Amino acid sequence: MEDLELSTPTNLRRILLTLEYDGSGFAGLQTQAQGERTVQQELEAALSQIPGARPKIWPCGRTDAGVHALAMPVHYDTLDNIPTEKIPHALNTLLPPDIRALAAQEVPADFHARKSCHWREYRYRILQRRMPPALDRHRVWWIPHSLNLIPMRHALECLVGTHDFKAFAVKEERATVREIYRAHLEVWPTEGGREIWIEFVGSGFLRGQVRSMVGTLVEIGLGKRDSSSIQSLLASGSRKDAGPTAPAQGLYFVRAGYQPYRQ
Amino acid sequence: MEDLELSTPTNLRRILLTLEYDGSGFAGLQTQAQGERTVQQELEAALSQIPGARPKIWPCGRTDAGVHALAMPVHYDTLDNIPTEKIPHALNTLLPPDIRALAAQEVPADFHARKSCHWREYRYRILQRRMPPALDRHRVWWIPHSLNLIPMRHALECLVGTHDFKAFAVKEERATVREIYRAHLEVWPTEGGREIWIEFVGSGFLRGQVRSMVGTLVEIGLGKRDSSSIQSLLASGSRKDAGPTAPAQGLYFVRAGYQPYRQ
Repeated sequence: MEDLELSTPTNLRRILLTLEYDGSGFAGLQTQAQGERTVQQELEAALSQIPGARPKIWPCGRTDAGVHALAMPVHYDTLDNIPTEKIPHALNTLLPPDIRALAAQEVPADFHARKSCHWREYRYRILQRRMPPALDRHRVWWIPHSLNLIPMRHALECLVGTHDFKAFAVKEERATVREIYRAHLEVWPTEGGREIWIEFVGSGFLRGQVRSMVGTLVEIGLGKRDSSSIQSLLASGSRKDAGPTAPAQGLYFVRAGYQPYRQ
Repeated sequence: MEDLELSTPTNLRRILLTLEYDGSGFAGLQTQAQGERTVQQELEAALSQIPGARPKIWPCGRTDAGVHALAMPVHYDTLDNIPTEKIPHALNTLLPPDIRALAAQEVPADFHARKSCHWREYRYRILQRRMPPALDRHRVWWIPHSLNLIPMRHALECLVGTHDFKAFAVKEERATVREIYRAHLEVWPTEGGREIWIEFVGSGFLRGQVRSMVGTLVEIGLGKRDSSSIQSLLASGSRKDAGPTAPAQGLYFVRAGYQPYRQ
Protein backbone atom coordinates (compact mmCIF):
# COMPACT_ATOMS: atom_id res chain seq x y z
CA MET A 1 0.00 0.00 0.00
CA GLU A 2 2.75 2.47 0.88
CA ASP A 3 4.48 1.84 -2.42
CA LEU A 4 1.22 2.36 -4.26
CA GLU A 5 0.57 5.69 -2.58
CA LEU A 6 4.07 6.98 -3.23
CA SER A 7 4.24 5.98 -6.88
CA THR A 8 2.34 7.94 -9.53
CA PRO A 9 -1.08 6.40 -10.10
CA THR A 10 -1.49 5.37 -13.72
CA ASN A 11 -4.70 7.39 -14.16
CA LEU A 12 -3.15 10.60 -12.84
CA ARG A 13 -3.55 13.36 -15.42
CA ARG A 14 -1.81 16.71 -15.59
CA ILE A 15 -4.20 19.44 -16.75
CA LEU A 16 -3.20 22.76 -18.27
CA LEU A 17 -5.92 25.26 -17.56
CA THR A 18 -6.31 28.74 -19.07
CA LEU A 19 -7.82 31.38 -16.78
CA GLU A 20 -9.25 34.83 -17.26
CA TYR A 21 -9.52 36.95 -14.13
CA ASP A 22 -10.42 40.44 -13.03
CA GLY A 23 -7.52 41.38 -10.74
CA SER A 24 -9.37 44.19 -8.97
CA GLY A 25 -10.79 41.93 -6.26
CA PHE A 26 -7.57 40.01 -5.55
CA ALA A 27 -4.36 40.50 -3.57
CA GLY A 28 -2.65 38.95 -6.60
CA LEU A 29 -2.47 35.56 -8.28
CA GLN A 30 -0.28 33.73 -5.79
CA THR A 31 -1.14 33.20 -2.15
CA GLN A 32 1.44 35.01 -0.01
CA ALA A 33 -0.11 35.33 3.42
CA GLN A 34 -3.16 33.74 4.97
CA GLY A 35 -6.38 35.72 4.89
CA GLU A 36 -5.76 37.56 1.62
CA ARG A 37 -8.08 36.74 -1.27
CA THR A 38 -5.99 35.43 -4.17
CA VAL A 39 -6.74 33.73 -7.48
CA GLN A 40 -4.72 30.71 -6.30
CA GLN A 41 -6.73 30.38 -3.09
CA GLU A 42 -10.06 30.55 -4.97
CA LEU A 43 -8.95 28.09 -7.65
CA GLU A 44 -7.54 25.62 -5.11
CA ALA A 45 -10.79 25.89 -3.10
CA ALA A 46 -12.74 25.03 -6.29
CA LEU A 47 -10.44 22.09 -7.14
CA SER A 48 -10.78 20.73 -3.61
CA GLN A 49 -14.49 20.23 -4.35
CA ILE A 50 -13.70 17.92 -7.29
CA PRO A 51 -13.08 14.40 -5.95
CA GLY A 52 -9.70 13.17 -7.19
CA ALA A 53 -8.32 16.59 -8.14
CA ARG A 54 -5.20 17.66 -6.25
CA PRO A 55 -5.94 21.16 -4.96
CA LYS A 56 -2.52 22.61 -5.70
CA ILE A 57 -1.86 24.77 -8.76
CA TRP A 58 1.29 25.93 -10.55
CA PRO A 59 0.76 29.16 -12.49
CA CYS A 60 2.83 30.29 -15.48
CA GLY A 61 3.70 33.59 -13.84
CA ARG A 62 2.78 35.83 -10.97
CA THR A 63 0.56 38.88 -11.10
CA ASP A 64 0.36 41.52 -8.35
CA ALA A 65 -2.77 42.84 -6.67
CA GLY A 66 -5.04 44.57 -9.20
CA VAL A 67 -3.33 43.09 -12.29
CA HIS A 68 -5.64 41.22 -14.70
CA ALA A 69 -5.21 38.14 -16.88
CA LEU A 70 -6.82 37.37 -20.22
CA ALA A 71 -5.36 33.85 -20.56
CA MET A 72 -3.15 32.77 -17.67
CA PRO A 73 -1.95 29.13 -17.88
CA VAL A 74 -1.84 27.08 -14.67
CA HIS A 75 -1.38 23.34 -14.25
CA TYR A 76 -2.58 20.85 -11.65
CA ASP A 77 -2.80 17.08 -11.29
CA THR A 78 -5.95 15.06 -10.97
CA LEU A 79 -7.31 11.54 -10.62
CA ASP A 80 -10.86 12.61 -11.48
CA ASN A 81 -12.79 11.18 -14.42
CA ILE A 82 -14.15 14.44 -15.85
CA PRO A 83 -13.61 14.51 -19.63
CA THR A 84 -10.93 17.19 -20.22
CA GLU A 85 -13.16 19.33 -22.45
CA LYS A 86 -15.77 19.51 -19.68
CA ILE A 87 -13.34 20.75 -16.99
CA PRO A 88 -13.76 24.51 -17.72
CA HIS A 89 -17.53 24.30 -17.33
CA ALA A 90 -17.26 22.14 -14.18
CA LEU A 91 -14.81 24.60 -12.61
CA ASN A 92 -16.86 27.65 -13.59
CA THR A 93 -19.79 26.35 -11.54
CA LEU A 94 -17.43 26.30 -8.51
CA LEU A 95 -15.38 29.48 -9.12
CA PRO A 96 -16.39 33.05 -8.19
CA PRO A 97 -17.49 35.17 -11.20
CA ASP A 98 -14.26 37.21 -11.31
CA ILE A 99 -12.34 34.05 -12.34
CA ARG A 100 -13.36 32.04 -15.42
CA ALA A 101 -11.74 28.88 -16.74
CA LEU A 102 -11.54 29.33 -20.53
CA ALA A 103 -9.91 26.08 -21.66
CA ALA A 104 -8.34 22.85 -20.42
CA GLN A 105 -6.02 20.36 -22.06
CA GLU A 106 -4.20 17.26 -20.88
CA VAL A 107 -0.41 17.68 -20.94
CA PRO A 108 2.50 15.25 -20.33
CA ALA A 109 3.54 14.55 -16.72
CA ASP A 110 6.77 16.53 -17.19
CA PHE A 111 4.99 19.64 -18.49
CA HIS A 112 5.19 22.61 -16.13
CA ALA A 113 3.12 25.80 -16.63
CA ARG A 114 6.04 28.02 -15.57
CA LYS A 115 9.17 26.02 -16.44
CA SER A 116 7.94 24.85 -19.87
CA CYS A 117 6.93 28.38 -20.90
CA HIS A 118 8.88 29.98 -23.79
CA TRP A 119 7.33 33.44 -23.84
CA ARG A 120 4.84 35.65 -22.05
CA GLU A 121 2.84 38.55 -23.41
CA TYR A 122 1.73 41.57 -21.37
CA ARG A 123 -0.40 44.56 -22.31
CA TYR A 124 -0.59 47.89 -20.51
CA ARG A 125 -3.63 50.11 -21.13
CA ILE A 126 -3.41 53.90 -20.72
CA LEU A 127 -6.47 56.13 -21.10
CA GLN A 128 -5.43 59.62 -22.16
CA ARG A 129 -8.31 62.10 -21.87
CA ARG A 130 -9.20 65.15 -19.86
CA MET A 131 -11.57 63.61 -17.32
CA PRO A 132 -11.17 60.39 -15.28
CA PRO A 133 -13.20 57.29 -16.24
CA ALA A 134 -15.96 55.70 -14.15
CA LEU A 135 -16.48 52.50 -16.16
CA ASP A 136 -12.80 51.65 -16.71
CA ARG A 137 -11.48 52.91 -13.38
CA HIS A 138 -10.14 49.40 -12.54
CA ARG A 139 -9.03 48.70 -16.12
CA VAL A 140 -6.71 51.51 -17.27
CA TRP A 141 -4.17 54.06 -16.07
CA TRP A 142 -5.86 57.41 -16.60
CA ILE A 143 -3.46 60.18 -17.73
CA PRO A 144 -4.98 63.64 -18.34
CA HIS A 145 -1.86 64.99 -20.07
CA SER A 146 -0.84 64.69 -23.70
CA LEU A 147 1.73 61.97 -24.44
CA ASN A 148 4.19 62.33 -27.30
CA LEU A 149 4.23 58.86 -28.84
CA ILE A 150 7.26 59.36 -31.12
CA PRO A 151 9.93 59.25 -28.37
CA MET A 152 7.92 56.52 -26.58
CA ARG A 153 8.08 54.33 -29.71
CA HIS A 154 11.79 55.02 -30.04
CA ALA A 155 12.36 54.05 -26.40
CA LEU A 156 10.37 50.83 -26.90
CA GLU A 157 12.75 49.79 -29.69
CA CYS A 158 15.68 50.15 -27.28
CA LEU A 159 14.05 47.70 -24.86
CA VAL A 160 13.90 44.88 -27.43
CA GLY A 161 16.70 42.30 -27.15
CA THR A 162 18.65 40.65 -24.35
CA HIS A 163 19.44 43.12 -21.57
CA ASP A 164 20.03 43.35 -17.85
CA PHE A 165 16.69 44.81 -16.71
CA LYS A 166 17.86 45.37 -13.12
CA ALA A 167 16.89 49.08 -13.25
CA PHE A 168 13.23 48.06 -13.83
CA ALA A 169 13.04 45.33 -11.17
CA VAL A 170 11.20 45.69 -7.89
CA LYS A 171 12.04 43.28 -5.02
CA GLU A 172 13.59 40.79 -7.48
CA GLU A 173 16.00 38.21 -6.09
CA ARG A 174 16.71 36.30 -9.30
CA ALA A 175 19.26 37.06 -12.03
CA THR A 176 18.08 40.14 -13.95
CA VAL A 177 18.99 39.36 -17.58
CA ARG A 178 15.94 38.74 -19.77
CA GLU A 179 15.08 38.89 -23.45
CA ILE A 180 12.28 41.02 -24.91
CA TYR A 181 11.19 39.73 -28.31
CA ARG A 182 8.68 42.41 -29.15
CA ALA A 183 7.70 45.80 -27.69
CA HIS A 184 5.16 47.98 -29.42
CA LEU A 185 2.54 50.62 -28.97
CA GLU A 186 -0.97 50.86 -30.41
CA VAL A 187 -3.42 53.74 -30.28
CA TRP A 188 -7.22 53.59 -30.30
CA PRO A 189 -9.45 56.66 -30.51
CA THR A 190 -12.05 56.88 -27.73
CA GLU A 191 -14.77 59.37 -26.81
CA GLY A 192 -12.91 62.53 -25.83
CA GLY A 193 -9.45 61.02 -25.96
CA ARG A 194 -7.50 57.91 -26.88
CA GLU A 195 -6.33 54.62 -25.46
CA ILE A 196 -2.66 53.71 -25.71
CA TRP A 197 -1.74 50.03 -25.46
CA ILE A 198 1.89 49.15 -24.74
CA GLU A 199 2.57 45.48 -25.44
CA PHE A 200 5.57 43.32 -24.57
CA VAL A 201 6.49 39.77 -25.46
CA GLY A 202 9.51 38.35 -23.66
CA SER A 203 11.21 35.22 -22.36
CA GLY A 204 10.16 36.28 -18.90
CA PHE A 205 9.78 39.43 -16.86
CA LEU A 206 11.21 40.48 -13.51
CA ARG A 207 8.96 41.49 -10.63
CA GLY A 208 7.61 44.96 -11.38
CA GLN A 209 9.43 45.11 -14.73
CA VAL A 210 6.51 45.86 -17.05
CA ARG A 211 5.04 48.48 -14.74
CA SER A 212 8.47 50.16 -14.23
CA MET A 213 9.13 50.18 -17.98
CA VAL A 214 5.69 51.74 -18.55
CA GLY A 215 6.26 54.33 -15.81
CA THR A 216 9.54 55.29 -17.48
CA LEU A 217 7.98 55.34 -20.97
CA VAL A 218 5.22 57.67 -19.74
CA GLU A 219 7.84 60.08 -18.36
CA ILE A 220 9.40 60.02 -21.84
CA GLY A 221 5.98 60.69 -23.43
CA LEU A 222 5.41 63.60 -21.04
CA GLY A 223 8.78 65.11 -21.99
CA LYS A 224 10.16 64.65 -18.45
CA ARG A 225 13.03 62.53 -19.73
CA ASP A 226 14.71 61.73 -23.05
CA SER A 227 14.17 58.44 -24.87
CA SER A 228 17.94 57.85 -24.63
CA SER A 229 17.53 57.41 -20.86
CA ILE A 230 16.48 53.81 -21.62
CA GLN A 231 20.01 52.93 -22.75
CA SER A 232 21.48 54.64 -19.66
CA LEU A 233 19.15 52.67 -17.40
CA LEU A 234 19.95 49.36 -19.11
CA ALA A 235 23.68 50.19 -18.71
CA SER A 236 23.56 51.46 -15.11
CA GLY A 237 20.97 49.09 -13.65
CA SER A 238 20.01 51.90 -11.29
CA ARG A 239 16.41 51.52 -10.04
CA LYS A 240 16.36 55.00 -8.52
CA ASP A 241 16.99 56.55 -11.95
CA ALA A 242 14.05 54.74 -13.60
CA GLY A 243 10.51 56.11 -13.71
CA PRO A 244 7.78 55.30 -11.18
CA THR A 245 5.93 51.98 -11.18
CA ALA A 246 2.77 52.38 -13.29
CA PRO A 247 -0.45 51.50 -11.41
CA ALA A 248 -1.52 47.85 -11.32
CA GLN A 249 -5.00 48.26 -12.81
CA GLY A 250 -3.70 49.00 -16.34
CA LEU A 251 -1.69 45.76 -16.60
CA TYR A 252 -2.92 42.57 -18.29
CA PHE A 253 -1.19 39.21 -18.58
CA VAL A 254 -2.33 38.45 -22.14
CA ARG A 255 -1.05 34.93 -22.86
CA ALA A 256 1.92 32.59 -22.74
CA GLY A 257 3.51 30.34 -25.34
CA TYR A 258 4.90 26.82 -25.02
CA GLN A 259 6.77 26.88 -28.32
CA PRO A 260 9.66 29.21 -29.25
CA TYR A 261 8.36 32.70 -30.05
CA ARG A 262 7.83 33.59 -33.69
CA GLN A 263 6.98 37.15 -34.61
CA MET B 1 -38.30 89.09 2.17
CA GLU B 2 -40.94 86.65 1.08
CA ASP B 3 -41.00 88.14 -2.39
CA LEU B 4 -37.24 87.89 -2.62
CA GLU B 5 -37.27 84.21 -1.71
CA LEU B 6 -40.01 83.37 -4.18
CA SER B 7 -38.53 85.22 -7.14
CA THR B 8 -35.58 83.83 -9.08
CA PRO B 9 -32.32 85.25 -7.73
CA THR B 10 -30.43 87.02 -10.48
CA ASN B 11 -27.25 85.01 -9.92
CA LEU B 12 -29.04 81.67 -10.19
CA ARG B 13 -27.40 79.56 -12.92
CA ARG B 14 -28.72 76.43 -14.59
CA ILE B 15 -25.91 73.92 -15.16
CA LEU B 16 -25.98 71.09 -17.67
CA LEU B 17 -23.69 68.35 -16.44
CA THR B 18 -22.50 65.30 -18.39
CA LEU B 19 -22.00 62.12 -16.33
CA GLU B 20 -20.31 58.80 -16.93
CA TYR B 21 -21.32 56.01 -14.56
CA ASP B 22 -20.81 52.32 -14.00
CA GLY B 23 -24.35 51.03 -13.48
CA SER B 24 -23.33 47.80 -11.76
CA GLY B 25 -23.37 49.29 -8.28
CA PHE B 26 -26.66 51.18 -8.65
CA ALA B 27 -30.38 50.44 -8.42
CA GLY B 28 -30.68 52.72 -11.47
CA LEU B 29 -30.28 56.41 -12.21
CA GLN B 30 -33.45 57.73 -10.59
CA THR B 31 -34.29 57.36 -6.93
CA GLN B 32 -37.44 55.22 -6.61
CA ALA B 33 -37.53 54.06 -3.03
CA GLN B 34 -35.53 55.11 0.00
CA GLY B 35 -32.49 53.06 0.89
CA GLU B 36 -31.55 52.04 -2.63
CA ARG B 37 -28.24 53.35 -3.94
CA THR B 38 -28.93 55.40 -7.08
CA VAL B 39 -26.91 57.78 -9.25
CA GLN B 40 -29.40 60.54 -8.42
CA GLN B 41 -29.01 60.02 -4.67
CA GLU B 42 -25.19 60.11 -4.89
CA LEU B 43 -25.15 63.19 -7.14
CA GLU B 44 -27.67 65.07 -4.99
CA ALA B 45 -25.60 64.20 -1.89
CA ALA B 46 -22.52 65.64 -3.61
CA LEU B 47 -24.38 68.81 -4.68
CA SER B 48 -25.67 69.31 -1.12
CA GLN B 49 -22.04 69.77 -0.07
CA ILE B 50 -21.59 72.73 -2.43
CA PRO B 51 -22.91 75.89 -0.73
CA GLY B 52 -25.48 77.53 -3.00
CA ALA B 53 -26.13 74.50 -5.21
CA ARG B 54 -29.70 73.20 -5.16
CA PRO B 55 -29.42 69.48 -4.52
CA LYS B 56 -32.08 68.40 -6.99
CA ILE B 57 -31.22 67.04 -10.44
CA TRP B 58 -33.20 66.50 -13.64
CA PRO B 59 -31.72 63.78 -15.83
CA CYS B 60 -32.21 63.45 -19.60
CA GLY B 61 -33.49 59.91 -19.32
CA ARG B 62 -33.80 57.03 -16.93
CA THR B 63 -31.59 53.96 -16.76
CA ASP B 64 -32.47 50.78 -14.89
CA ALA B 65 -30.31 48.95 -12.36
CA GLY B 66 -27.09 47.72 -13.97
CA VAL B 67 -27.35 49.96 -17.06
CA HIS B 68 -24.33 52.21 -17.72
CA ALA B 69 -23.94 55.72 -19.10
CA LEU B 70 -21.07 57.14 -21.13
CA ALA B 71 -22.42 60.72 -21.26
CA MET B 72 -25.73 61.25 -19.46
CA PRO B 73 -26.92 64.88 -19.34
CA VAL B 74 -28.53 66.15 -16.13
CA HIS B 75 -29.32 69.70 -15.10
CA TYR B 76 -29.50 71.46 -11.74
CA ASP B 77 -29.68 75.03 -10.48
CA THR B 78 -27.10 76.76 -8.37
CA LEU B 79 -26.22 80.03 -6.66
CA ASP B 80 -22.59 79.00 -6.10
CA ASN B 81 -19.64 80.95 -7.48
CA ILE B 82 -17.64 78.04 -8.87
CA PRO B 83 -16.48 78.85 -12.43
CA THR B 84 -18.48 76.54 -14.71
CA GLU B 85 -15.39 74.85 -16.18
CA LYS B 86 -14.25 73.89 -12.67
CA ILE B 87 -17.54 72.21 -11.67
CA PRO B 88 -16.64 68.71 -12.99
CA HIS B 89 -13.43 68.59 -10.96
CA ALA B 90 -15.15 69.98 -7.85
CA LEU B 91 -17.91 67.38 -8.11
CA ASN B 92 -15.48 64.53 -8.76
CA THR B 93 -13.82 65.17 -5.42
CA LEU B 94 -17.26 64.66 -3.79
CA LEU B 95 -18.66 61.83 -5.94
CA PRO B 96 -17.97 58.08 -5.51
CA PRO B 97 -15.54 56.65 -8.13
CA ASP B 98 -18.30 54.87 -10.10
CA ILE B 99 -19.74 58.27 -11.12
CA ARG B 100 -17.58 60.87 -12.88
CA ALA B 101 -18.63 64.34 -14.03
CA LEU B 102 -17.13 64.78 -17.50
CA ALA B 103 -18.27 68.28 -18.47
CA ALA B 104 -20.40 71.22 -17.33
CA GLN B 105 -21.91 74.14 -19.18
CA GLU B 106 -24.23 76.98 -18.24
CA VAL B 107 -27.58 76.79 -20.05
CA PRO B 108 -30.60 79.16 -20.24
CA ALA B 109 -33.12 79.06 -17.39
CA ASP B 110 -35.72 77.43 -19.66
CA PHE B 111 -33.40 74.61 -20.72
CA HIS B 112 -34.45 71.19 -19.44
CA ALA B 113 -32.20 68.09 -19.71
CA ARG B 114 -35.15 65.84 -20.57
CA LYS B 115 -37.70 68.15 -22.22
CA SER B 116 -35.17 70.01 -24.41
CA CYS B 117 -33.62 66.78 -25.68
CA HIS B 118 -34.00 65.98 -29.42
CA TRP B 119 -32.41 62.56 -29.57
CA ARG B 120 -30.84 59.86 -27.44
CA GLU B 121 -28.29 57.25 -28.41
CA TYR B 122 -28.03 53.80 -26.83
CA ARG B 123 -25.55 50.99 -27.39
CA TYR B 124 -25.97 47.32 -26.49
CA ARG B 125 -22.86 45.14 -26.22
CA ILE B 126 -23.04 41.38 -26.82
CA LEU B 127 -20.00 39.13 -26.33
CA GLN B 128 -20.29 36.05 -28.50
CA ARG B 129 -17.71 33.41 -27.55
CA ARG B 130 -17.60 29.91 -26.13
CA MET B 131 -16.69 30.72 -22.53
CA PRO B 132 -18.09 33.39 -20.18
CA PRO B 133 -16.03 36.52 -19.42
CA ALA B 134 -14.53 37.45 -16.05
CA LEU B 135 -13.36 40.99 -16.84
CA ASP B 136 -16.47 42.13 -18.73
CA ARG B 137 -19.05 40.22 -16.69
CA HIS B 138 -20.79 43.50 -15.74
CA ARG B 139 -20.26 45.08 -19.18
CA VAL B 140 -21.70 42.72 -21.84
CA TRP B 141 -24.37 40.11 -22.48
CA TRP B 142 -22.45 36.87 -22.97
CA ILE B 143 -23.96 34.59 -25.62
CA PRO B 144 -22.16 31.28 -26.29
CA HIS B 145 -24.10 30.51 -29.47
CA SER B 146 -23.47 31.70 -33.00
CA LEU B 147 -25.60 34.63 -34.15
CA ASN B 148 -26.55 35.09 -37.80
CA LEU B 149 -26.09 38.81 -38.37
CA ILE B 150 -27.78 39.00 -41.78
CA PRO B 151 -31.40 38.64 -40.54
CA MET B 152 -30.52 40.75 -37.49
CA ARG B 153 -29.40 43.61 -39.77
CA HIS B 154 -32.56 43.21 -41.85
CA ALA B 155 -34.69 43.35 -38.69
CA LEU B 156 -32.88 46.49 -37.53
CA GLU B 157 -33.86 48.27 -40.76
CA CYS B 158 -37.52 47.52 -40.02
CA LEU B 159 -37.24 49.27 -36.65
CA VAL B 160 -36.14 52.59 -38.18
CA GLY B 161 -38.90 55.17 -38.56
CA THR B 162 -41.96 56.25 -36.60
CA HIS B 163 -43.75 53.26 -35.08
CA ASP B 164 -45.88 52.23 -32.15
CA PHE B 165 -43.30 50.36 -30.03
CA LYS B 166 -45.89 49.06 -27.54
CA ALA B 167 -44.77 45.44 -28.08
CA PHE B 168 -41.31 46.37 -26.77
CA ALA B 169 -42.42 48.40 -23.74
CA VAL B 170 -42.17 47.20 -20.16
CA LYS B 171 -44.26 48.94 -17.48
CA GLU B 172 -44.73 52.00 -19.72
CA GLU B 173 -47.62 54.32 -18.97
CA ARG B 174 -46.99 56.96 -21.65
CA ALA B 175 -48.05 56.96 -25.29
CA THR B 176 -46.01 54.36 -27.17
CA VAL B 177 -45.29 55.97 -30.55
CA ARG B 178 -41.62 56.91 -31.00
CA GLU B 179 -39.25 57.56 -33.88
CA ILE B 180 -35.99 55.69 -34.40
CA TYR B 181 -33.60 57.68 -36.59
CA ARG B 182 -30.83 55.11 -36.83
CA ALA B 183 -30.40 51.43 -35.90
CA HIS B 184 -27.27 49.58 -36.80
CA LEU B 185 -24.96 46.76 -35.85
CA GLU B 186 -21.17 46.68 -35.64
CA VAL B 187 -18.87 43.70 -35.10
CA TRP B 188 -15.47 43.66 -33.40
CA PRO B 189 -13.23 40.60 -33.33
CA THR B 190 -12.08 39.62 -29.83
CA GLU B 191 -9.90 36.85 -28.42
CA GLY B 192 -11.81 33.64 -29.10
CA GLY B 193 -14.96 35.33 -30.36
CA ARG B 194 -16.48 38.66 -31.31
CA GLU B 195 -18.31 41.60 -29.84
CA ILE B 196 -21.55 42.73 -31.44
CA TRP B 197 -22.67 46.30 -30.80
CA ILE B 198 -26.28 47.19 -31.54
CA GLU B 199 -26.79 50.95 -31.62
CA PHE B 200 -29.97 53.01 -31.67
CA VAL B 201 -30.60 56.72 -32.05
CA GLY B 202 -34.18 57.84 -31.48
CA SER B 203 -36.44 60.68 -30.38
CA GLY B 204 -36.95 58.80 -27.14
CA PHE B 205 -37.33 55.26 -25.93
CA LEU B 206 -40.01 53.55 -23.87
CA ARG B 207 -39.17 51.80 -20.62
CA GLY B 208 -37.46 48.52 -21.47
CA GLN B 209 -37.64 49.23 -25.22
CA VAL B 210 -33.96 48.89 -26.14
CA ARG B 211 -33.52 45.72 -24.08
CA SER B 212 -36.73 44.18 -25.51
CA MET B 213 -35.70 45.03 -29.08
CA VAL B 214 -32.26 43.47 -28.42
CA GLY B 215 -33.82 40.35 -26.89
CA THR B 216 -36.00 39.98 -29.99
CA LEU B 217 -33.07 40.64 -32.35
CA VAL B 218 -31.01 37.95 -30.60
CA GLU B 219 -33.83 35.44 -31.10
CA ILE B 220 -33.71 36.37 -34.79
CA GLY B 221 -29.91 35.89 -34.84
CA LEU B 222 -30.30 32.49 -33.17
CA GLY B 223 -32.83 31.42 -35.82
CA LYS B 224 -35.62 31.12 -33.24
CA ARG B 225 -37.77 33.63 -35.14
CA ASP B 226 -37.87 35.25 -38.56
CA SER B 227 -36.77 38.85 -39.15
CA SER B 228 -40.29 39.56 -40.46
CA SER B 229 -41.59 39.11 -36.90
CA ILE B 230 -40.50 42.72 -36.27
CA GLN B 231 -43.23 44.02 -38.60
CA SER B 232 -45.79 41.73 -36.94
CA LEU B 233 -44.80 43.01 -33.50
CA LEU B 234 -44.97 46.65 -34.58
CA ALA B 235 -48.43 45.95 -36.04
CA SER B 236 -49.83 43.89 -33.15
CA GLY B 237 -48.26 45.73 -30.20
CA SER B 238 -48.28 42.42 -28.37
CA ARG B 239 -45.60 42.32 -25.65
CA LYS B 240 -46.02 38.59 -25.09
CA ASP B 241 -45.02 37.88 -28.69
CA ALA B 242 -41.77 39.86 -28.44
CA GLY B 243 -38.46 38.37 -27.31
CA PRO B 244 -37.15 38.42 -23.74
CA THR B 245 -35.68 41.56 -22.18
CA ALA B 246 -31.90 41.48 -22.72
CA PRO B 247 -29.88 41.74 -19.47
CA ALA B 248 -29.16 45.22 -18.09
CA GLN B 249 -25.36 44.96 -17.95
CA GLY B 250 -24.95 45.11 -21.76
CA LEU B 251 -26.80 48.43 -22.13
CA TYR B 252 -25.14 51.86 -22.35
CA PHE B 253 -26.75 55.27 -22.58
CA VAL B 254 -24.21 56.76 -25.02
CA ARG B 255 -25.22 60.42 -25.39
CA ALA B 256 -28.09 62.83 -26.06
CA GLY B 257 -28.49 65.70 -28.49
CA TYR B 258 -30.09 69.10 -28.01
CA GLN B 259 -30.31 69.92 -31.71
CA PRO B 260 -32.39 68.01 -34.32
CA TYR B 261 -30.67 64.74 -35.25
CA ARG B 262 -28.56 64.67 -38.39
CA GLN B 263 -27.20 61.37 -39.63
